[in-house]
Amino acid sequence: MNYKGRLGRAITALDAGHASVLLVTHLPNIRYLCGFSGSAGVLVIAKQGAVLFTDGRYRQQARDEVKGVRVSIGRKAALLTAAEWLQHHASKLGSGSRIGIEAAHMSVADRNRLAKALSRGFKLIATVGVLERIRVIKDSDEIGRIRKACHLGAELFQGLIKALRPGVSEAQVAGGLEFAARKAGAEQMSFPTIIAGGTRSALPHGRASGNPIPRRGFVVCDFGVILAGYCSDMTRTVHVGLAATAAREAYEAVQEAQQAAVEAVRPGVTVGEIDGTARKLLQNKRLGKFFTHSTGHGVGLEIHEAPRVAAGQKEVLQPGMVITIEPGIYMPGKWGVRIEDTVVVTETGCEILTPCPKNLLTL
Amino acid sequence: MNYKGRLGRAITALDAGHASVLLVTHLPNIRYLCGFSGSAGVLVIAKQGAVLFTDGRYRQQARDEVKGVRVSIGRKAALLTAAEWLQHHASKLGSGSRIGIEAAHMSVADRNRLAKALSRGFKLIATVGVLERIRVIKDSDEIGRIRKACHLGAELFQGLIKALRPGVSEAQVAGGLEFAARKAGAEQMSFPTIIAGGTRSALPHGRASGNPIPRRGFVVCDFGVILAGYCSDMTRTVHVGLAATAAREAYEAVQEAQQAAVEAVRPGVTVGEIDGTARKLLQNKRLGKFFTHSTGHGVGLEIHEAPRVAAGQKEVLQPGMVITIEPGIYMPGKWGVRIEDTVVVTETGCEILTPCPKNLLTL
Repeated sequence: MNYKGRLGRAITALDAGHASVLLVTHLPNIRYLCGFSGSAGVLVIAKQGAVLFTDGRYRQQARDEVKGVRVSIGRKAALLTAAEWLQHHASKLGSGSRIGIEAAHMSVADRNRLAKALSRGFKLIATVGVLERIRVIKDSDEIGRIRKACHLGAELFQGLIKALRPGVSEAQVAGGLEFAARKAGAEQMSFPTIIAGGTRSALPHGRASGNPIPRRGFVVCDFGVILAGYCSDMTRTVHVGLAATAAREAYEAVQEAQQAAVEAVRPGVTVGEIDGTARKLLQNKRLGKFFTHSTGHGVGLEIHEAPRVAAGQKEVLQPGMVITIEPGIYMPGKWGVRIEDTVVVTETGCEILTPCPKNLLTL
Repeated sequence: MNYKGRLGRAITALDAGHASVLLVTHLPNIRYLCGFSGSAGVLVIAKQGAVLFTDGRYRQQARDEVKGVRVSIGRKAALLTAAEWLQHHASKLGSGSRIGIEAAHMSVADRNRLAKALSRGFKLIATVGVLERIRVIKDSDEIGRIRKACHLGAELFQGLIKALRPGVSEAQVAGGLEFAARKAGAEQMSFPTIIAGGTRSALPHGRASGNPIPRRGFVVCDFGVILAGYCSDMTRTVHVGLAATAAREAYEAVQEAQQAAVEAVRPGVTVGEIDGTARKLLQNKRLGKFFTHSTGHGVGLEIHEAPRVAAGQKEVLQPGMVITIEPGIYMPGKWGVRIEDTVVVTETGCEILTPCPKNLLTL
């Protein structure tokens, strides 16, 4: 991983935002910039260099993982250790000492604590998305890792469908998938596994429950793994038993909308247009009002990253962006269907990272 | 679950804090007050009643789960829908309209967004721990659920030690445990499972990795399940192969410190004293500097809750509090030992919720 290049881009962004220092509190941003994957830390980036503050629990881990920045182990919470460091280096940091904070990733309580720990010479500047803007374009190392995670996800799905039988609980199906993921080297799942059968398939976020897989009906399977830090994300909806005509037609409508949206992905197109492609096709079949969420989201170190692939969003696709395409329709109390791929934008279109058939699979 | 009583206590706390409204953004607090377990929502509590704001993805789930409060499904982010509702009801909410926000659970960016969406008549008040103070004393329903979760954890440990063999990867051991948890009805694990063998046992937060269990050495096993919303937490350290004398002595020192701290738990004692009991015993054996974290934490809907069982903390134990007692010592590059129980404070002492032997188990 090119940590040096990333840190360089962060410092350039800092300059552009007229801050002397960026206080990084969002853990995925810290991991992106220096490799640290612990669950407590603050990274201070200044033109003079960068320092990671963490505590004694992570001494060994920081030594093993961190690249390109100094590590400081403190006795207090990392935020307070960082504040003391800033205070100590106030004169070096330059006049005014404008400290950028990550406004979306610092609580009001932490902001107040920080302000109290710093003298009046410092000014806290609320920044939003400084590092997320950099992270939106994945480099080739990152794309390689996301591809591997997605390929593992697609492989695991083959095992999953073997375990899907009427009467087996959703949780047992999810548990088998997760055990297989562990054995294949996944660090963890990228979000709580969704296995939602029968009427539960109408819940867009139907986490696997104790309910049994029904004798007949849709089962939405939405899951992802984290492999070497990077997330995968895919959804397939299968049907247990024979699908009624209306259900089959609905499935085909979602499939068509999903395919059209994937085919629309290329540099220069806005994410709003991608959402519109899927949405319009479902609206034409009077299914638009059952498509109750947006079409997708970025994927990387986090399962939900920029850009949001949603109506009205103006972000323009560029090579190296990784997004999901996941339209779905949900008939409350009846059933639901969602189909999702993760794709990476290439120079001429996109590569589907989740190679797995999408025709209706009847078990 | 007595949602009505909880909401009543929240309104009383609101009064005491001189706010007209509390805007609840911390999801476990929302679940505590009305049963909603979705991953996006804002609960507005006013004397006139309470309203849960969420979005279309959670329509069905909110209908199934929410008790005692109105549900409003919006098209925008819940925070903005809540802000519109406040704006609309400004006159009813009373003069000044002081809106309490959960400062530890609202980002600076969300606070700014909220302030912008509300007119000048509103004043945002940063509150800290209003609901956490109420949640610190568990009612009998909650203790029953935590007990069940902890008993399941203790049962699962019996399976775990059967799977622990030299050469098997830590991740495979963790995966087997997690699959068994799923099959037994757990919703998910309460935190990333720690299986840390050999030199990795010296990492207090050593998540299960691809490393094999060594032929000889300690293996720290720290894990928990979530059952019916409530967390369990326990740690046992086992030894593969024969333990050297120094390792055995260190184990016994931790065991003695842990046992003494458990025996010190009773109403009226401060959490700082509990920490001191364990720490002093280790210090007396010149092991104090290797005990690099605090003795424990509260457990409930979240894996880490109030109170912190740490040096200098003044919180007084009361019946109904549920805390962990988990001293450990870590020799960087060599090995580590931690032993942890979850206990509930009773009228006269405490009940250990994690019934599982603590003598050194040699595999």
